[in-house]
Amino acid sequence: MKLIADISIIPLGVGLSLSTYVAACEQVFREAGLEPRLHPNGTNVEGDWDAVTGALKTCHEKLHSMGVPRIATNVRLGTRTDREASMEDKIASVKEKMER
Amino acid sequence: MKLIADISIIPLGVGLSLSTYVAACEQVFREAGLEPRLHPNGTNVEGDWDAVTGALKTCHEKLHSMGVPRIATNVRLGTRTDREASMEDKIASVKEKMER
Amino acid sequence: MKLIADISIIPLGVGLSLSTYVAACEQVFREAGLEPRLHPNGTNVEGDWDAVTGALKTCHEKLHSMGVPRIATNVRLGTRTDREASMEDKIASVKEKMER
Amino acid sequence: MKLIADISIIPLGVGLSLSTYVAACEQVFREAGLEPRLHPNGTNVEGDWDAVTGALKTCHEKLHSMGVPRIATNVRLGTRTDREASMEDKIASVKEKMER
Repeated sequence: MKLIADISIIPLGVGLSLSTYVAACEQVFREAGLEPRLHPNGTNVEGDWDAVTGALKTCHEKLHSMGVPRIATNVRLGTRTDREASMEDKIASVKEKMER
Repeated sequence: MKLIADISIIPLGVGLSLSTYVAACEQVFREAGLEPRLHPNGTNVEGDWDAVTGALKTCHEKLHSMGVPRIATNVRLGTRTDREASMEDKIASVKEKMER
Repeated sequence: MKLIADISIIPLGVGLSLSTYVAACEQVFREAGLEPRLHPNGTNVEGDWDAVTGALKTCHEKLHSMGVPRIATNVRLGTRTDREASMEDKIASVKEKMER
Repeated sequence: MKLIADISIIPLGVGLSLSTYVAACEQVFREAGLEPRLHPNGTNVEGDWDAVTGALKTCHEKLHSMGVPRIATNVRLGTRTDREASMEDKIASVKEKMER
């Protein structure tokens, strides 16, 4: 089952600068082959359900091993059976409507 | 790694009444031993990371098998290493502060 | 326009114990007449759109005035025009399906 | 109070193709001067708190007027008092860490 996900990870108890931890998770997602696309409030990934949720687990484990005591993550998960659709398709579909 | 999660599942393409599908997922979570606690905008569960994300996958698969062509889920995921904390602990901690 | 919302507020830069801040927001919501219902991963409120978003703004302002330097909030917002539905209705509708 | 927000709007009861509605909200955000940046699972905006939440309300009203009977929106809201930070700053900060 293919999954498109938008992942926002918030490390707690390590102060206000979170970018080191976000970068660490980007690396986890890249190493998992998920081609993460960072945006100002999260990261979009697409792949097999187990690959995505497995990489997210690895990310939590990695941050905890870096000394983050608590993590609050928000994830938007999309699956569909009506047709194949990539993240690019979703963007293209909206842009087509905007140009009309 | 213990996970406390708040799961909001939105089936698309099946009209406006979503309760049948929410109920189906509640059953999935119960059968997985996650003791789901339904609230007006989602369901709270706690358990091992793999048990929770596995049950969520089963829920998506079940809804698709029931004819739901597209699903958009929002999940809040919390893990921590500083101490054990249950969902009850989280509520009790806030209520203690409110009563002061 | 009536709004049912589920609000999860995460204060950053104030350590790991967040319950004092969650309790402060509960008070803001109560004072706004929104009858907040706390759950382990957020608070459900219902009311007029402006009343809910106004109280959420007051909550952010209050936490900042308490010394919280950064806040990350996740909100689920539901509006509908097909019929009136309360938070109780949403829960009852799911429970009815579960009992069948 | 400056707000950086990530808004994911899900219209219900209008089938599976949501791009028309997403495009309509992009227009609302642009007209409000919020410079929305569409990504595959939402739209990032930044601006004054009231401008952002006001535009989001206008978006819900517009979709309902287009015939959408029910809307489920997920929003990530960030405010901070420690320093000024734009969406560009957030991305740049993570990329700097990744390149090291």
